[in-house]
Amino acid sequence: MTEKTIPGSAPLPSREAVEQAFREAYEIGRAVTITGKVADYIPELAKANPRDFGIAMLDGEGHSLAFGDADTRFSIQSVCKVIILAFSLKVKGFRETFSHVMMEPSGDAFNSILKLDTRSNLPFNPLINAGAIQLVSTMAERFSFEDLLGFARELCMDPEICLNEAVYHSEFDSGDRNRAITYLLKSKGVLRGDPEKTVDLYFKLCSMAVTARSLASLGLVISNDGVNPISGEHLIDREYVRTIKSLMFTCGLYDSSGRFGVMVGVPGKSGVGGGLMCAARGPMGIGLYGPALDEFGNSVAGVKAMEHLSRRLNLHVFDY
Amino acid sequence: MTEKTIPGSAPLPSREAVEQAFREAYEIGRAVTITGKVADYIPELAKANPRDFGIAMLDGEGHSLAFGDADTRFSIQSVCKVIILAFSLKVKGFRETFSHVMMEPSGDAFNSILKLDTRSNLPFNPLINAGAIQLVSTMAERFSFEDLLGFARELCMDPEICLNEAVYHSEFDSGDRNRAITYLLKSKGVLRGDPEKTVDLYFKLCSMAVTARSLASLGLVISNDGVNPISGEHLIDREYVRTIKSLMFTCGLYDSSGRFGVMVGVPGKSGVGGGLMCAARGPMGIGLYGPALDEFGNSVAGVKAMEHLSRRLNLHVFDY
Amino acid sequence: MTEKTIPGSAPLPSREAVEQAFREAYEIGRAVTITGKVADYIPELAKANPRDFGIAMLDGEGHSLAFGDADTRFSIQSVCKVIILAFSLKVKGFRETFSHVMMEPSGDAFNSILKLDTRSNLPFNPLINAGAIQLVSTMAERFSFEDLLGFARELCMDPEICLNEAVYHSEFDSGDRNRAITYLLKSKGVLRGDPEKTVDLYFKLCSMAVTARSLASLGLVISNDGVNPISGEHLIDREYVRTIKSLMFTCGLYDSSGRFGVMVGVPGKSGVGGGLMCAARGPMGIGLYGPALDEFGNSVAGVKAMEHLSRRLNLHVFDY
Amino acid sequence: MTEKTIPGSAPLPSREAVEQAFREAYEIGRAVTITGKVADYIPELAKANPRDFGIAMLDGEGHSLAFGDADTRFSIQSVCKVIILAFSLKVKGFRETFSHVMMEPSGDAFNSILKLDTRSNLPFNPLINAGAIQLVSTMAERFSFEDLLGFARELCMDPEICLNEAVYHSEFDSGDRNRAITYLLKSKGVLRGDPEKTVDLYFKLCSMAVTARSLASLGLVISNDGVNPISGEHLIDREYVRTIKSLMFTCGLYDSSGRFGVMVGVPGKSGVGGGLMCAARGPMGIGLYGPALDEFGNSVAGVKAMEHLSRRLNLHVFDY
Repeated sequence: MTEKTIPGSAPLPSREAVEQAFREAYEIGRAVTITGKVADYIPELAKANPRDFGIAMLDGEGHSLAFGDADTRFSIQSVCKVIILAFSLKVKGFRETFSHVMMEPSGDAFNSILKLDTRSNLPFNPLINAGAIQLVSTMAERFSFEDLLGFARELCMDPEICLNEAVYHSEFDSGDRNRAITYLLKSKGVLRGDPEKTVDLYFKLCSMAVTARSLASLGLVISNDGVNPISGEHLIDREYVRTIKSLMFTCGLYDSSGRFGVMVGVPGKSGVGGGLMCAARGPMGIGLYGPALDEFGNSVAGVKAMEHLSRRLNLHVFDY
Repeated sequence: MTEKTIPGSAPLPSREAVEQAFREAYEIGRAVTITGKVADYIPELAKANPRDFGIAMLDGEGHSLAFGDADTRFSIQSVCKVIILAFSLKVKGFRETFSHVMMEPSGDAFNSILKLDTRSNLPFNPLINAGAIQLVSTMAERFSFEDLLGFARELCMDPEICLNEAVYHSEFDSGDRNRAITYLLKSKGVLRGDPEKTVDLYFKLCSMAVTARSLASLGLVISNDGVNPISGEHLIDREYVRTIKSLMFTCGLYDSSGRFGVMVGVPGKSGVGGGLMCAARGPMGIGLYGPALDEFGNSVAGVKAMEHLSRRLNLHVFDY
Repeated sequence: MTEKTIPGSAPLPSREAVEQAFREAYEIGRAVTITGKVADYIPELAKANPRDFGIAMLDGEGHSLAFGDADTRFSIQSVCKVIILAFSLKVKGFRETFSHVMMEPSGDAFNSILKLDTRSNLPFNPLINAGAIQLVSTMAERFSFEDLLGFARELCMDPEICLNEAVYHSEFDSGDRNRAITYLLKSKGVLRGDPEKTVDLYFKLCSMAVTARSLASLGLVISNDGVNPISGEHLIDREYVRTIKSLMFTCGLYDSSGRFGVMVGVPGKSGVGGGLMCAARGPMGIGLYGPALDEFGNSVAGVKAMEHLSRRLNLHVFDY
Repeated sequence: MTEKTIPGSAPLPSREAVEQAFREAYEIGRAVTITGKVADYIPELAKANPRDFGIAMLDGEGHSLAFGDADTRFSIQSVCKVIILAFSLKVKGFRETFSHVMMEPSGDAFNSILKLDTRSNLPFNPLINAGAIQLVSTMAERFSFEDLLGFARELCMDPEICLNEAVYHSEFDSGDRNRAITYLLKSKGVLRGDPEKTVDLYFKLCSMAVTARSLASLGLVISNDGVNPISGEHLIDREYVRTIKSLMFTCGLYDSSGRFGVMVGVPGKSGVGGGLMCAARGPMGIGLYGPALDEFGNSVAGVKAMEHLSRRLNLHVFDY
């Protein structure tokens, strides 16, 4: 195993070492699936198999790896917040986007209403429900679900992403907390669009059916300055990508973002559907799927696997 | 101006470009000092000259730069929390340290009591008052102020750091909110040491008199894997340094940590004395001193200067 | 002026003294209307004349008094919460009613979401929005607006109470905070009925058009053990009336309930439409209408007039 | 059993009926002591016998009743807040007293810090720790513990009230939450006296050793317009007594004040030492002692006994 050493940067391991590390990470992740619990607040999510686990990797040279349930489709859930943020930055720019949401970690559960009502009128950041809903409300008039779906397919290099109707209806039926957040934002004069149209679009975006492989592609685009390295297409501005990664680092894993930053040190975004998308340096995109969740709503297997990968492949962004 | 390009990493600028960027940053920072306000909740701090501003830089090859008030002594205030954390990691290790504090960004003001009382018994992270006080309480029995002062001198490569008695007494007299935090932690059974001894040591640590140059050295040690590049001395374990930088990134600038992460992208820690310490890659330590503060308690000049440096020198950690 | 003295109780003043006290109270109230501000969060409420003020009194022997705008119709707003509570007690009884709401003063603004989300799943009491909405949700399936309107007409001895359509539509259009509260209750599994049906019925109940005279009748029924002293009809059980009065005393005037209890000492319920209904001993019902509100949402004239009446007529319940 | 009927007031039962009701209340209270738990946050309190229960009654004609442990001494704890409030009203008057505390029920636990830090700088009312501590701070310079002890002895007609040194020391050692409250008030500029002197005096006041009989006397003075009916001495102004009763009604039983108001309807004040003092109409003072507490910190036996007495003797203040 040879390692290329770069001055002022951590060594990049060989391709064999990378494959070996992913295989180990897969085994480690699979083993801990039994310690988590599938989300049940949306009935449709409760149907997932808690023992499922898959990892996919895609790097800048087009090499890919896949282990386990890397092609199983699941609902993207909160990972779609990264796509919503990227879309908002693309169509409205930095300044307008951040006139609608702040960029501070909230230190609160993903669906906290407390913070919204006591501290500030603007949602704390775009990666919590209130922030994502607020950004969706600014798009709901001019853009359709299809527009955002198209953008998601490009970023994920996956033309088969579609709406999971069953999840969408389940989401719609049990999304009362998100409705409460939406009406609270409306009552404060922060959200200006139509509340029902807004939550409907938000529920659809959360219900997009992706795979670990789709998330690996998304992660790669983000880790590669917004460029799809295969097609060469420029999908997100470099400057915006930096912003997205910063926010993923500080706010990407709910109430466990700080710990993930310390233990893994890679910008990531999790969803209660079991997805975890990471944008590692290299560039390297990593997508993980494990619906058994920890107490914070993150995939137990996904987090454990990433801890291993970070250690073995020197992925920690503060290992400079 | 030649730039060395590293695959998978941002280009490192020439020494001339670095010097030019620092000169510009100094001018930009100096110009905005008029928009801030010196801290006045501790009488002694109110005596600082709001127009003061200084920057110091130190890199891994021993080159240094200094502009403006880089040798003015001021009280370290919250920047000492990084030293407290490093000391705790050194003497107690990772596991025990994080049995006393969590590692989550709080999304609350530096002296929030709300969070402490509603969400959790453990302080959110070691870089807010409650967290630092909690760590100090675990040391107050076994270690004296002199022990920590010695460690601070080593990290800052500055044997002249001493206690500013006037600030210490001012701190002691007006530190009622910190006493409230300490007694609240005590009443919850979290803080086990003696409250008065704990706040006394904490006030002393906040009152250490440093310069922008001292903070540049501290930043360099942190950006250089915990090693003093001049003496070769290993002061903090590499693994702990990673943890420190992660926490600085997510929690280092009070309620503006998220914005600093997006706009600057360098691990930093600010203090209400006007200090700002940054650990940039290179390795490069940057110390700034500008006592005129913004609404969040961060040096206005320091933050503005860092925004410029990050852009001009590609220091943003997510520019990979 | 002769006064009947009752051992162990405050003396009851003569009829002339009563009339004189009401005349003074009217003048005092009228004079302070200029210090208040008409509610504007619902556009239709903003149309009220801030200088309007009226008082009506009705006692157990059928004597009545009226000063100023005692026959002006205005929307009942939060005073309807007393009717909702009385209706719930009547059709569901004490035990079931208080399985849906608690009976504690909240010490929070009438539309607080904070308390709902941090302390308890059940609304604090039936006289804040969350509590009233929760009770309405338990009725919305079995009872129509007309059923409750009929009950309101009986209690207020006012067959002309009707829905103010303009207020109802205004309410409906700007009721996002109440929708947020409703969906939050729904998401917590506390509210079991249909959210939209619930808020619709709640908005209608708040939009009933009453007069100061209607509120005096309501107050009299409550102060007379639930019996209409003119018809002899038993409208609310004696035991329930006691509960209603207790809750009016502890929670009837929003964040100023404690002060009203100290300064006036009579069970009262205010509404942002400018109404104030009091159930004084005697029995005596007092209805006041003054749309200029204080910072807490209570009629400035109404509160001042009641302070005078309480002092002059020994109405304070703790003057035993 | 003959009952005297008073127009506009509930009938007063005969002396035999009163004695019988108290005997029943004693039996009922004694039976439920097993459902409560003795306070243990102060070690000295944990030593009380959970099965102890006593009731004492004293009326305006000097008749008294006593059952069970009516002469057992216990620490007055929060019941002293009524004495502190009465003393403040006496020496500073209404206006100055309520420039230091508000008069709103807090809807929060007796030692809530949350409310103090988010809503207002002034404590919510004088019957929660923050409010009582604030009032004590305004007295600590001019008055000694002996001054307040003397006043307590007069109100309780009990010259043997003294400081329970063991409780005081226990209190002092474990009073960190009260210290946190005190320093928080100090840091907000609300509390102006010396924090340590303030908590010391407060702890002493909480440690006064009283009996159920002492509390019955205190209740009688309050229910008799502030006059000791035996000596004829005027101890508290009539107007202040009304204020005290109102605040006892809205805030006297911690987070269960609203329920006590509904179910019992008599101004009361409880303490975690197991004491409960009630000022019923008649006039009639009732003192209860039962150290087994419910989840809110109120004597289980005391509350149950009062529910029975209120029903049997028509004591509910809203039964007019």
